[in-house]
Amino acid sequence: MNHVQEQARAMLATAVAEARAGLAEGGIPIGAALYGPDGTLLGRGRNRRVQDDDPSVHAETAAFRAAGRQRSYRGTTMVTTLSPCWYCSGLVRQFGISRLVVGEARTFHGGHDWLARHGVRIVLLDDPECAAMMRDFIGAHPALWNEDIGAE
Amino acid sequence: MNHVQEQARAMLATAVAEARAGLAEGGIPIGAALYGPDGTLLGRGRNRRVQDDDPSVHAETAAFRAAGRQRSYRGTTMVTTLSPCWYCSGLVRQFGISRLVVGEARTFHGGHDWLARHGVRIVLLDDPECAAMMRDFIGAHPALWNEDIGAE
Repeated sequence: MNHVQEQARAMLATAVAEARAGLAEGGIPIGAALYGPDGTLLGRGRNRRVQDDDPSVHAETAAFRAAGRQRSYRGTTMVTTLSPCWYCSGLVRQFGISRLVVGEARTFHGGHDWLARHGVRIVLLDDPECAAMMRDFIGAHPALWNEDIGAE
Repeated sequence: MNHVQEQARAMLATAVAEARAGLAEGGIPIGAALYGPDGTLLGRGRNRRVQDDDPSVHAETAAFRAAGRQRSYRGTTMVTTLSPCWYCSGLVRQFGISRLVVGEARTFHGGHDWLARHGVRIVLLDDPECAAMMRDFIGAHPALWNEDIGAE
């Protein structure tokens, strides 16, 4: 494992901890975190659709919000357990977040290729725990998952 | 003025009222609302960066959140005083919001062309009041505006 992968795995651990906490609360198990250019944790969060009855807080938005107002996102890394949907991909692109670490893209293939084409560095880890959490959740709660991604 | 334009202008009035309220609070004057297929107002809101010190609540997200959890967004209309940034464009695309009414795209040209290519019906009104509010705000607070769109 090279240095980039090692650092990405360490960041993913924070997002996975958020996803597990969400699952324990009865929520959709997706977690995320935003790291500064020097590796400092700026914010972390998880999907809050079930917990807060709030459709607008996907994990990436929760982490972005927790980081508070920032003058620049240059050099920051967003880490998420699952490939980001268009809403969260748009967040990464709009604010110029430099790098995206994705836990897995097997259960949902979001906008990370689009982000790569627009200059975001992507690290796709294909983590078995992230994939298993989502596969199990989608199997048990398909309607909730479809609601979360606007699928009918 | 045809029926579509007339209905769009009536919806825009709600978004403009939100933008004016935001301006009066010292905030960034962008407002939005989400309407159901039958024209019922589902939610309305405004940019809350300044008011709540929250970078994650653009006007479209505020309106989407205020509408609460919906099983489907088919047939809904998002109306916003300003062409939506990538974050808010991603929201519209991900959740399958069918139509987007844009107050103006002169002061900021966001993702509405991209949304049109992906099947969202766009009504661009080029409203003078929306444009004047943003032009004046950007002139008076350029740093705040740049922060809101992740520009350096």
